[in-house]
Amino acid sequence: MTKSVNIAIIGAGVVGSAFINQLTALKSSINYNVILLSTSKKALISNNYNPLDLSNFQDSLSKTTQSSLSIDDLIAYLVKSPKPTILVDNTSNELMANSYPLFINNGISIATPNKKAFSSDLKLWNDIFENEGKDNDKFGLCYHESSVGAGLPLISPLKEMISTGDEVKTIEGIFSGTLSYIFNEFSTIESNNTKFSDIVKIAKDLGYTEPDPRDDLNGLDVARKVTILARISGLDIQSPTSFPVHSLIPKDLESVESSDEYMQKLPNFDNEMDELKLQASKEGKVLRFIGKVDVLANKASVEIAKYDYSHPFASLKGSDNVISIKTKRYPNPLIIQGAGAGADVTAMGVLGDVIKIGQRIAK
Amino acid sequence: MTKSVNIAIIGAGVVGSAFINQLTALKSSINYNVILLSTSKKALISNNYNPLDLSNFQDSLSKTTQSSLSIDDLIAYLVKSPKPTILVDNTSNELMANSYPLFINNGISIATPNKKAFSSDLKLWNDIFENEGKDNDKFGLCYHESSVGAGLPLISPLKEMISTGDEVKTIEGIFSGTLSYIFNEFSTIESNNTKFSDIVKIAKDLGYTEPDPRDDLNGLDVARKVTILARISGLDIQSPTSFPVHSLIPKDLESVESSDEYMQKLPNFDNEMDELKLQASKEGKVLRFIGKVDVLANKASVEIAKYDYSHPFASLKGSDNVISIKTKRYPNPLIIQGAGAGADVTAMGVLGDVIKIGQRIAK
Ligand SMILES: NC(=O)c1ccc[n+]([C@@H]2O[C@H](COP(=O)([O-])OP(=O)(O)OC[C@H]3O[C@@H](n4cnc5c(N)ncnc54)[C@H](OP(=O)(O)O)[C@@H]3O)[C@@H](O)[C@H]2O)c1
Ligand SMILES: NC(=O)c1ccc[n+]([C@@H]2O[C@H](COP(=O)([O-])OP(=O)(O)OC[C@H]3O[C@@H](n4cnc5c(N)ncnc54)[C@H](OP(=O)(O)O)[C@@H]3O)[C@@H](O)[C@H]2O)c1
Repeated sequence: MTKSVNIAIIGAGVVGSAFINQLTALKSSINYNVILLSTSKKALISNNYNPLDLSNFQDSLSKTTQSSLSIDDLIAYLVKSPKPTILVDNTSNELMANSYPLFINNGISIATPNKKAFSSDLKLWNDIFENEGKDNDKFGLCYHESSVGAGLPLISPLKEMISTGDEVKTIEGIFSGTLSYIFNEFSTIESNNTKFSDIVKIAKDLGYTEPDPRDDLNGLDVARKVTILARISGLDIQSPTSFPVHSLIPKDLESVESSDEYMQKLPNFDNEMDELKLQASKEGKVLRFIGKVDVLANKASVEIAKYDYSHPFASLKGSDNVISIKTKRYPNPLIIQGAGAGADVTAMGVLGDVIKIGQRIAK
Repeated sequence: MTKSVNIAIIGAGVVGSAFINQLTALKSSINYNVILLSTSKKALISNNYNPLDLSNFQDSLSKTTQSSLSIDDLIAYLVKSPKPTILVDNTSNELMANSYPLFINNGISIATPNKKAFSSDLKLWNDIFENEGKDNDKFGLCYHESSVGAGLPLISPLKEMISTGDEVKTIEGIFSGTLSYIFNEFSTIESNNTKFSDIVKIAKDLGYTEPDPRDDLNGLDVARKVTILARISGLDIQSPTSFPVHSLIPKDLESVESSDEYMQKLPNFDNEMDELKLQASKEGKVLRFIGKVDVLANKASVEIAKYDYSHPFASLKGSDNVISIKTKRYPNPLIIQGAGAGADVTAMGVLGDVIKIGQRIAK
């Protein structure tokens, strides 16, 4: 008899839609049945827990009059599922993230690209992983490959290294596609005269940044990813603001109201970045915006760092992410590089998690 | 109640010993019980399927009078195991590899770093994967992460990419630690006058090569790894000799009897390699010995290739492996780099496989 799991998908945006397309095309010896699909306002819900038809899910969502469930109602619905159940959280919602322990302790597994749960207060992290994986029949599993580096094979391999006895020494990486692009264009091996503000403008025009580029340039997104990797490596990071995070927003522009005004005034601060670039190139180096974890020193940071032209980070192109992990077993670092954002690669990481969970819990 | 799997370990050499050390130190919510440990001549066997004590396994092996089982007897013993069972093949034995389909069809799962089964005749590959993963109670699973790139996260991520709907376009990589070292030293970004034969000699003296370096330089080991990756990517590669494989052994030295005579005559052929290096450096490139899979062109090869100084392969150091995978979802390639050999990283890949299988089949 074919084994099955039931799946509840929250979020049908960029990643959610790509996830649904990949899931419905999946060929597998396990049945992955979607029993719920919800956006912030509306939901498709299978009352008898039979699979929903998702062939025109956007259309069905727009037509339905069913409103989305509260988290309590969602859990009440899922615990009655006759098959093991996976919650796929494709939102960036904080409330949802805060409820992961509740789902897990109710036997519901989680697969998600949502960084929030893993990079907020340490207590939430501890609550999530207290019972996770302890007894598949009683507690849910929690996988979050796409919360750092999207679909790049990073979190699962890192956890596997550690669980088989390896010890992380340092992790260094470029974790933001946007800031990868900006620094790769700004600071190159061949000298160039490009201004930092010009590249931020181009990145904004290309849609590479958040609507307000300061949401990328404040370094918080990178700090969240560093928090996740540091915690997996064994550091008790209290929160993503509990360690030094370099903001690329000039002090004077932090409180400027509109993003337009910020963009307009940014060229006034090009000098500072030009000097950093000049200094680096005198040393035969380029600038990169990196996150860093040093396990032995018990330190994490987000900073501008300098790398030799021959360093793998120096020859990075486009908006790729790159992660360099030194461990007891990899004194010469293990390096993983590639696209760290985008609908399809992110959804792939989430679906990979769903498959791994399904293989463990399907009945 | 704690779930368990039973494990039979074949081979207690470099990888096998490291594997046993990692396994016995493993903390897990699943019990991994070793019920058999065998070398080519001798074996420790638990007749009542209770866990063996492996604290002094080398000593126990040397003292036992129990000889190793034939494959038929081994299968007969394992099918009677009261718990789901994993065969860990830490040998490079061909007979063992040829029997994988038999194990799998008898419900025994396999975790192995042994390339043989996956890179020999296509029929063997097809026989292995015909039923693999179909029904965990009836057929065994087969994981072989360490058969390419040792513990680097390569085979599992690649299989996951494909199973979630990604399509491999090309794979290019440096798959031999020995040949990585030799070419990284021979052909560098800064020009150098080192002779190919000198580096082969140094590599041999450092113990980086097989006792007869021709066993590395003939390219067959790389061809086997290319065969595995090509097959995962969907190509029907008949055998590792069914596509162009560049041998680094000069024709005239192929049939020379002793490895000493080969080493002695190798300097006579330095000219040819010097010319290749000169030509490359004129183009601003270095030489690397690579394996290549081109899915659209339905081609595989092992060859000397030239790479721009800015290419990730050009700045490779030591004996690292590196793999660059272009897919529909990663037009900018996914790159994975790091040690591709060594007891601990290889054993880690095998143990990772054992954990993944255990999570799927433990009872
Ligand atoms: N996009 C990427 O490249 C990428 C890469 C890595 C990780 N991620 C992560 O993936 C997640 C999703 O990103 P995205 O780009 O797909 O975002 P998005 O396009 O903004 O989609 C978010 C979806 O979540 C829904 N949603 C928000 N709050 C909800 C709630 N309380 N209950 C139910 N549904 C809710 C939204 O519904 P409404 O439309 O009704 O608001 C929308 O369908 C985020 O955590 C993001 O950080 C994304
Ligand atoms: N070493 C690495 O860095 C590395 C990296 C990647 C993959 N691998 C792969 O890992 C595997 C093991 O390599 P290794 O370096 O550990 O080799 P090894 O040190 O030569 O050990 C081989 C072991 O297998 C045993 N063996 C051979 N034939 C057997 C048979 N028919 N029945 C039972 N036991 C048998 C040997 O027993 P005896 O001592 O009695 O002969 C020995 O204990 C190989 O497939 C290799 O290609 C190794």
